[in-house]
Amino acid sequence: MSEITILNEKELRQIISLDNPAVECIENAFRLLATKEVVMPPILSFHVPDHNGEVDVKTAYVPGIDSFAIKMSPGFFDNPKIGLPSLNGLMVLFSSRTGIVEGVLLDNGYLTDIRTAAAGAVAAKWLSRKDSSVAGIVGTGTQARLQLKALCLVRDLKRAVVWGRNDLKAAQYAEECSKELGIDIQVAETIDDLMEQSDIVVTTTPSQTALISAEQLRPGQHITAMGTDADYKTELATDVIPAADLYVCDNLTQCRKQGELRPAIAAGMVDNAAVFPELGGIIAGLHGGRPSDRSITICDLTGTGVQDTAIATFVRERARDADIGTIFNS
Amino acid sequence: MSEITILNEKELRQIISLDNPAVECIENAFRLLATKEVVMPPILSFHVPDHNGEVDVKTAYVPGIDSFAIKMSPGFFDNPKIGLPSLNGLMVLFSSRTGIVEGVLLDNGYLTDIRTAAAGAVAAKWLSRKDSSVAGIVGTGTQARLQLKALCLVRDLKRAVVWGRNDLKAAQYAEECSKELGIDIQVAETIDDLMEQSDIVVTTTPSQTALISAEQLRPGQHITAMGTDADYKTELATDVIPAADLYVCDNLTQCRKQGELRPAIAAGMVDNAAVFPELGGIIAGLHGGRPSDRSITICDLTGTGVQDTAIATFVRERARDADIGTIFNS
Repeated sequence: MSEITILNEKELRQIISLDNPAVECIENAFRLLATKEVVMPPILSFHVPDHNGEVDVKTAYVPGIDSFAIKMSPGFFDNPKIGLPSLNGLMVLFSSRTGIVEGVLLDNGYLTDIRTAAAGAVAAKWLSRKDSSVAGIVGTGTQARLQLKALCLVRDLKRAVVWGRNDLKAAQYAEECSKELGIDIQVAETIDDLMEQSDIVVTTTPSQTALISAEQLRPGQHITAMGTDADYKTELATDVIPAADLYVCDNLTQCRKQGELRPAIAAGMVDNAAVFPELGGIIAGLHGGRPSDRSITICDLTGTGVQDTAIATFVRERARDADIGTIFNS
Repeated sequence: MSEITILNEKELRQIISLDNPAVECIENAFRLLATKEVVMPPILSFHVPDHNGEVDVKTAYVPGIDSFAIKMSPGFFDNPKIGLPSLNGLMVLFSSRTGIVEGVLLDNGYLTDIRTAAAGAVAAKWLSRKDSSVAGIVGTGTQARLQLKALCLVRDLKRAVVWGRNDLKAAQYAEECSKELGIDIQVAETIDDLMEQSDIVVTTTPSQTALISAEQLRPGQHITAMGTDADYKTELATDVIPAADLYVCDNLTQCRKQGELRPAIAAGMVDNAAVFPELGGIIAGLHGGRPSDRSITICDLTGTGVQDTAIATFVRERARDADIGTIFNS
């Protein structure tokens, strides 16, 4: 018998949002990933072919965090046809000392949204020019919105441009995010146009063909590529990583398998054995960050189990403080 | 928003026990594993080295079963020092059609106990002599108790013998199980003694050194080796599998990695490429079963995700019928 706290999405939204403490929580997770003996097994991933579904399970044990999360993320891409969201899922929190279940976080993917956007803030904080003032967002979905909000937490943005395949959605994005964030947002007609104007670019799409090529890069620009998290996705052409002055992974092993590094290696543009710094290593001071104001930097985010463990543990603390959630005896 | 049924261990014990329907449920799971395009990814397994813990995550999508389970099984082996059980865990049930969470089964490992014991019943039903009347149980723990109960469901046992490292526990086992099952149970002084008497032997220990060797095998005997489920465990000497007339796996891939097949291959006693029938294949009639009354048969059980998916789906039906559990909105 143990006491388990169960929180649903509504309760989680009450206590967790994309703010500075959430960004600090994720920054700390990356620091621990680089400096502690983190145990982060390969993602368990499988398909449900009869229903166009895929399921990912991520986890990480992080010394210094007294719980660990196991996150289950189903994506069933025919769901919209029957009026349901594609992405769902939950996290389960366990004690790192005893393995006993401490919490079940029925977040429907909300915590993943937050920890993913927070990683974008961390990447921009450590890699983009401090005086970056224009953001370019590729994509118009949930992450496109949250990533721009995340940038606003770490850089003093004057304005943003957005590009999406669907003009109507791009216009909606510009109007709604402009209202929410209080900055001017324009729709870019082309990605060329977006790249021309932006100090920081965040790619947030599930594209299976490259959207940005090396010739579009501008000196001083930082790109966070967060859409690519599977071995069939790519947003950056294979000449982009070799053209950058600094390419940083969230996790090198994962990026080789399912980040932007994968197609670059497959195309022979990057050596499979090439070693690149990880975001946590830069935060911890193990690697230098942006070389100069004119350097081009890239951060490849595939999403890590340490982020899930960190945000779930953060939830546990917030839930205790707010006395929120339902206690259940197992 | 979706409706999720949450059941705790007490509720699960009310609706699920080791009985014929549970055995049929697991038998059907093995049949589907052999005949359908089951998706069963490799087990996600990791260690929590600072606290002597390990965690396994198993799952399987089975066409023909309209939900799939993800099971998380932490084992923290220092827990008994602080008065807690080593094994814990839970299962989460998802719709196979939409990936939406349907249930959270806070079973603390109870459902694993049941589906594991049920597999023992299935193995004995399909592989042991029909007139088997004496069971030998190696080990005295929870599975030792359940496996004997499982055998009683499929064979008309007259008596049993038990062997354990701890004499007191073996005596307790004999007394308590004899009372529960209504058969005579004696403590065997040695494994030799147990092997001499038994028609069906079930090994249920976490032993890291072999307990049974080929010279102890008797004609007509069936052995179910269910203790070995990790790459550091073994209960059968490496000469046992070659000495058997029929060796059957629950899942060949898993048995090569973490069943009794692993040490036999490592010792060069079995070829790594050797193909053996799976239990489901025998149930489905794809392979013959026991060749003769004098044959020696072995079933190697490592535990499969299909069993978890099957038992969790069975729980869902039983919970609906009994109107038990707490409904939660995610």
